[in-house]
Amino acid sequence: MQTITIGLLGLGTVGQGVVDLLQKQAAKILRTQDFAFKLKTVAVHNLSRHQNADLPAGTILTDRVMDVVDDPEIQIVIEAMGTIEAARVAICQAILNGKSIISANKDLLATDGDALLTLAKTVGVDFFYEASVAGGIPILRVLSSSLETDEITQVTGIINGTVNHVLTAMDRDGQDYAAALANAQELGYAEADPTNDVQGIDAAYKLIILSRFAFGQSLTMDKVPIQGISAVTPAQLASADRLGLKIKLLAVAKKENQQFYSFVGPAALPATEPLAHVNGVQNAIAVQSKALGETTYTGPGAGAGPTANSIISDLLATGDDIVKGNCGREFNRNRQSLPVRELTSVPQQYLITVAAPVERAVLAAFEWRRELAGPDYWSALTPVLTPAELAARLAALRQDGRRVSCLPVANSWHPAKEKSLRVLI
Amino acid sequence: MQTITIGLLGLGTVGQGVVDLLQKQAAKILRTQDFAFKLKTVAVHNLSRHQNADLPAGTILTDRVMDVVDDPEIQIVIEAMGTIEAARVAICQAILNGKSIISANKDLLATDGDALLTLAKTVGVDFFYEASVAGGIPILRVLSSSLETDEITQVTGIINGTVNHVLTAMDRDGQDYAAALANAQELGYAEADPTNDVQGIDAAYKLIILSRFAFGQSLTMDKVPIQGISAVTPAQLASADRLGLKIKLLAVAKKENQQFYSFVGPAALPATEPLAHVNGVQNAIAVQSKALGETTYTGPGAGAGPTANSIISDLLATGDDIVKGNCGREFNRNRQSLPVRELTSVPQQYLITVAAPVERAVLAAFEWRRELAGPDYWSALTPVLTPAELAARLAALRQDGRRVSCLPVANSWHPAKEKSLRVLI
Repeated sequence: MQTITIGLLGLGTVGQGVVDLLQKQAAKILRTQDFAFKLKTVAVHNLSRHQNADLPAGTILTDRVMDVVDDPEIQIVIEAMGTIEAARVAICQAILNGKSIISANKDLLATDGDALLTLAKTVGVDFFYEASVAGGIPILRVLSSSLETDEITQVTGIINGTVNHVLTAMDRDGQDYAAALANAQELGYAEADPTNDVQGIDAAYKLIILSRFAFGQSLTMDKVPIQGISAVTPAQLASADRLGLKIKLLAVAKKENQQFYSFVGPAALPATEPLAHVNGVQNAIAVQSKALGETTYTGPGAGAGPTANSIISDLLATGDDIVKGNCGREFNRNRQSLPVRELTSVPQQYLITVAAPVERAVLAAFEWRRELAGPDYWSALTPVLTPAELAARLAALRQDGRRVSCLPVANSWHPAKEKSLRVLI
Repeated sequence: MQTITIGLLGLGTVGQGVVDLLQKQAAKILRTQDFAFKLKTVAVHNLSRHQNADLPAGTILTDRVMDVVDDPEIQIVIEAMGTIEAARVAICQAILNGKSIISANKDLLATDGDALLTLAKTVGVDFFYEASVAGGIPILRVLSSSLETDEITQVTGIINGTVNHVLTAMDRDGQDYAAALANAQELGYAEADPTNDVQGIDAAYKLIILSRFAFGQSLTMDKVPIQGISAVTPAQLASADRLGLKIKLLAVAKKENQQFYSFVGPAALPATEPLAHVNGVQNAIAVQSKALGETTYTGPGAGAGPTANSIISDLLATGDDIVKGNCGREFNRNRQSLPVRELTSVPQQYLITVAAPVERAVLAAFEWRRELAGPDYWSALTPVLTPAELAARLAALRQDGRRVSCLPVANSWHPAKEKSLRVLI
């Protein structure tokens, strides 16, 4: 039985979770694998803060990253530092020293991933990062193995637990955005600085990684139209409910007519869609593909246990490759380069909410679907509209200073109608 | 680039689906893998019925199984015959001839799986069968890779599409069982002889395979308490709806206190559970585990495309093992042997439906939860009851000839309460 030596960078929630799960499952790993793991060294930023850390007997605790990445005995480096800059340098050095890498660092992978992954392939080491998207859902391994031969046409994700917790609370309790966010911060579901979450940036990072696996498509942040949730109101959530819809922050990547479309932002989902029932901090990813139709994967998006489990599943895959001399195979081997478009620019349906009644004369000029009116609101679904058609309607409704809000209806996107609609305008 | 030669047994819906998908995805396989596949020979039962089959140019069509299993050039045999006896003989012979096996034959794998899998391991060939459970959901590969290090405590499946279609139609349209089944047969969602589906036998086969992967537990059919859906009435579905529950045929395997529990049968699921929203022919599997909490996998349970995709994902895994000389690794390496119990024998809650009003005097002797009564029915949830406590209630309600039906409430199972409750009786 071969023993594989591991080094760990970082001992925060994720790092400590990995140490704990590795100890807890040591017997099962011995029973099911052809190898055992030995955690040799853990590098932390601040030694004094971790003097009482719960580590296996004999584990070296250091504040020098090089004690891990330059140690010839260490075969696998688990990066759980969480920063971009320091992690990039450490991973780069570890790869050059011939070590396989496991990381949960979605920011780094989404921004500099291609270069580091190419380096790993060139050197011939493994580089896995299952935990970087939707913590406990094994979506990357599913996309790169079970769905590898299928042709994926759309990936739709609820992949930010903080945002989904806030939207669920607003919908359930009628709270406004600021109150729901403050509450989430108190409960520990939102960070002190929640910018990356509520503005959709975190979801966009994950969508970039998902797009590589699902479509082979490389994507940069500037190519993804990103909207946050700060403008979502209780009135919109209520009008969505009345019309049988749920508002969620969606991350969408779609292939149609050999073009690639993406979008991150709040959208209205018909209650018949499985994702409409994903509440609180849960994550979910729906995959549409030619052979399978729709498959949906639901689970925890974050947390020490789920993230650690994904990291240890990467560890088993790497261990297996080391024992069999198979390192260097890419996690994702799918590559395609399609023209990139924004899903916001294609014909689609919208949920319109006006926080006041609207006179018949204003509405009569347009076609509406499933209109609903009350003493203090008017809301409706539109038919499939081009951006220009939508703009005309919004302008008409906004006359007389009415406050009008508008969200796309998920899965009403019709890139194929674009050409024929353009002719009509 | 290595070419791997394949033989196919059977050219029904699944077999033809494999041939079609293999041709359609040939370019993607070439792009992402280090090998190509060549389908050399297809063996069918009745040659004349397949004279116009759509096969790649040069493929040999034969009615002699030995032309596949004894051909030294063929490295992988895909078994899509569907029968138990003939498939067992063919697979056995192919393994002895050193060929790797891919099968979707759940009946065979659930009944004779252990022997054949041991033979494959001894000879050193691969034997994969992702398509045998929940057609298009990659649940076996997820359990054997991403969840391999986690400790699974419960698996709950809606894994028979025919039955779920019938129950969904009964619930939606108020149809009785016979009418909904006849309708499903007309639509092609139920077979002419639906016995294995509606009696829960098919779901039990799949649960046996799932239990091996999730718990390492070997199980035989006689150890699984199996109930079908023929006794489920529209009145039960209506009373479940009124109490916020949905009735589904569930297949459940559960580990608690180092004992293994199983159950296949109709049960009432709270509408807050993700599985309650799985309708029609969809399948879903919820996995509860220590590190992850709950993850849910939803998708198509059958059909040519989904089944073929699972078979081809097995084909890629086998191809990879052949190229790298790694054949012989078991699909599932989890082994445990816990005492086996029936989940029907542990304390749990029940949904009781009486198709008539019940006098207060009868009800007053017992505690009920969420009681509902109408002019022609009475229904309620019980607290957690032992089988003996349940029997006492049913006997009281059945006095005066009332028709009383009873279903367990999913996830109300309390093996841990068993001991203390026993003391009370």
